Amino acid sequence: MSIRQISIALIGFGNTGRRLAELLVERAGAIEERYKTRIVCTAIATAHHGSIVSGAALDLSLALDLVRHGKPLMSLPGVEQVKDSFEAISRSSAEVVIETTPLNVDNAEPALTHIRRALETGKHVITANKGPLAFAAREIQALAASNNLYLRYESTVMDGAPLFNLVNRTLPLIEIKSMRGIINSTTNFILTRMEQGSSFDEALSEAQRRGIAEADPGHDIDGWDAAVKAAVLANSLMGADLKPGMISREGIRHLERESLIEAYHSGKRLRLVTTIERIGDRVEARVGPEEIEAGDLLYVIDAFSNALIFETDLMGTIAIVEQNPELTQTAYGLLSDLLSIL
Amino acid sequence: MSIRQISIALIGFGNTGRRLAELLVERAGAIEERYKTRIVCTAIATAHHGSIVSGAALDLSLALDLVRHGKPLMSLPGVEQVKDSFEAISRSSAEVVIETTPLNVDNAEPALTHIRRALETGKHVITANKGPLAFAAREIQALAASNNLYLRYESTVMDGAPLFNLVNRTLPLIEIKSMRGIINSTTNFILTRMEQGSSFDEALSEAQRRGIAEADPGHDIDGWDAAVKAAVLANSLMGADLKPGMISREGIRHLERESLIEAYHSGKRLRLVTTIERIGDRVEARVGPEEIEAGDLLYVIDAFSNALIFETDLMGTIAIVEQNPELTQTAYGLLSDLLSIL
Repeated sequence: MSIRQISIALIGFGNTGRRLAELLVERAGAIEERYKTRIVCTAIATAHHGSIVSGAALDLSLALDLVRHGKPLMSLPGVEQVKDSFEAISRSSAEVVIETTPLNVDNAEPALTHIRRALETGKHVITANKGPLAFAAREIQALAASNNLYLRYESTVMDGAPLFNLVNRTLPLIEIKSMRGIINSTTNFILTRMEQGSSFDEALSEAQRRGIAEADPGHDIDGWDAAVKAAVLANSLMGADLKPGMISREGIRHLERESLIEAYHSGKRLRLVTTIERIGDRVEARVGPEEIEAGDLLYVIDAFSNALIFETDLMGTIAIVEQNPELTQTAYGLLSDLLSIL
Repeated sequence: MSIRQISIALIGFGNTGRRLAELLVERAGAIEERYKTRIVCTAIATAHHGSIVSGAALDLSLALDLVRHGKPLMSLPGVEQVKDSFEAISRSSAEVVIETTPLNVDNAEPALTHIRRALETGKHVITANKGPLAFAAREIQALAASNNLYLRYESTVMDGAPLFNLVNRTLPLIEIKSMRGIINSTTNFILTRMEQGSSFDEALSEAQRRGIAEADPGHDIDGWDAAVKAAVLANSLMGADLKPGMISREGIRHLERESLIEAYHSGKRLRLVTTIERIGDRVEARVGPEEIEAGDLLYVIDAFSNALIFETDLMGTIAIVEQNPELTQTAYGLLSDLLSIL
């Protein structure tokens, strides 16, 4: 049996990109056996360690080592340094670009330009960055379709838990009437801790120490992260054309510990809930704190866990739950997209 | 754009088979538009209304009408009566056999023979009957593979909620370490009602009135239904070769209303839980009542709802939940299998 080869470019090499690289190294044997395919990396673009391209397979283990020790990727044998991530994409011969740069909620850049550049130069795109899908879903989906290229983004919402693949690959002919869920881990963790007695600041610090909340947690706390995800879900699964700014949004900054404790002791919980509904011809979305009753599925979604409930025409109400995800799950989402392209 | 045609044989025409027939009539336009395919039925085998084959597409609406009014299917124009379901399969020119006869937990017949006959005569198989998968998974899967035919069975567990498709189509490379869930609606409904104060008999009668429990509810009450499903899950998703009789099994007949009420008032719930675990090289499964803590996902699975929690190597812990399914969901599971074959 002959082994095919597929080449990838890693654009962004932070926590998510590096965890994916580790998975590709660890699971190379299993992937080769199962898919008769060797995945080789031929370009890496980083924020702090330079950007490189190569004609042949890079040594990913060595690249991980270099970055771990704060050294530039130019030290890799046989690579050519390029100016930046854009040039890495244009100059790379990779078949698939994997985009994992950080979210920019103002204009989705540079991720949006990365994706456009990749699709324009004939490369499939897999992204963990929800910005481009929230701001320009129709444009980049049309660009991918007109070039006969894949654009996959499973890990943009609920890490690697299958949402887009669930609907697209296992629920044919289904129409989604609404989606409702808890899709931001930081706020869910903070609210879980506060109802147990922590102050907002203590809970936030703990979330930051555990690597869940960003140094600047405003996007989570004020509901922006959930609103961006809501736009991706609405645009991708319900045919909407929502921008994050069009979504009614209320954060958790003003919630008082006492109200949370009181709700908890009366058998309820306050949670940041995202709701997307089809109302007539329109799709509407909102993000805000809600009181959850004990019989509600969302009642048991605490700490870092996430859940999304789909109300459908033919399959009734089904939900997918992800319990306390870690970085591996986000990287797995990218890997599952890559394997689905194979 | 040319429209393909695919022909099916409906073997079994009870509640599930008829609901599928209704969906095929209702959604014919959407299927034709989306899949460029017309699904035509060319054979029906029933327990009480005869078995027929036809060279051309049957009028499914008329077939539904006839059965609704207690008339034999021979009244359909242009059909030929055959002796029984076996002859219907052998004589039919259908490309796909859809098997929906009732479960037989002793030997899986006649469903097992139906499936063998279909695969031996070159027909793909979709079944809602868990018996054959629980008793002879390896044999019929090998038979399908050696004939290059599909064998699909999404609706055997948790109706149409994607479990097999979830794992096979959206979780590539994943190894499942364990599965744990509530997968029998009748017992879950009875336990939900009993903790609210109903007697076992009242709760069972209500489940029967609502069409969930069978006239002979023993299979549900004694945990056989869950054990058969556990075998299907273990054999299909964890590479096991379990028979239902090898599964440790305890039913709910001996549970007292007082214990259920007491557990409920102390913030817990008694539920019939199915667990399948990989232990070293082996896969072990058990079915039995368990006390569920309030923080457990299964705590919110009440009435007819079902849930299955997967513990995996790369995707952590994820769960799928189906809230209060009805007959349509089972029929949809068959339809989703059929559309996935297209």
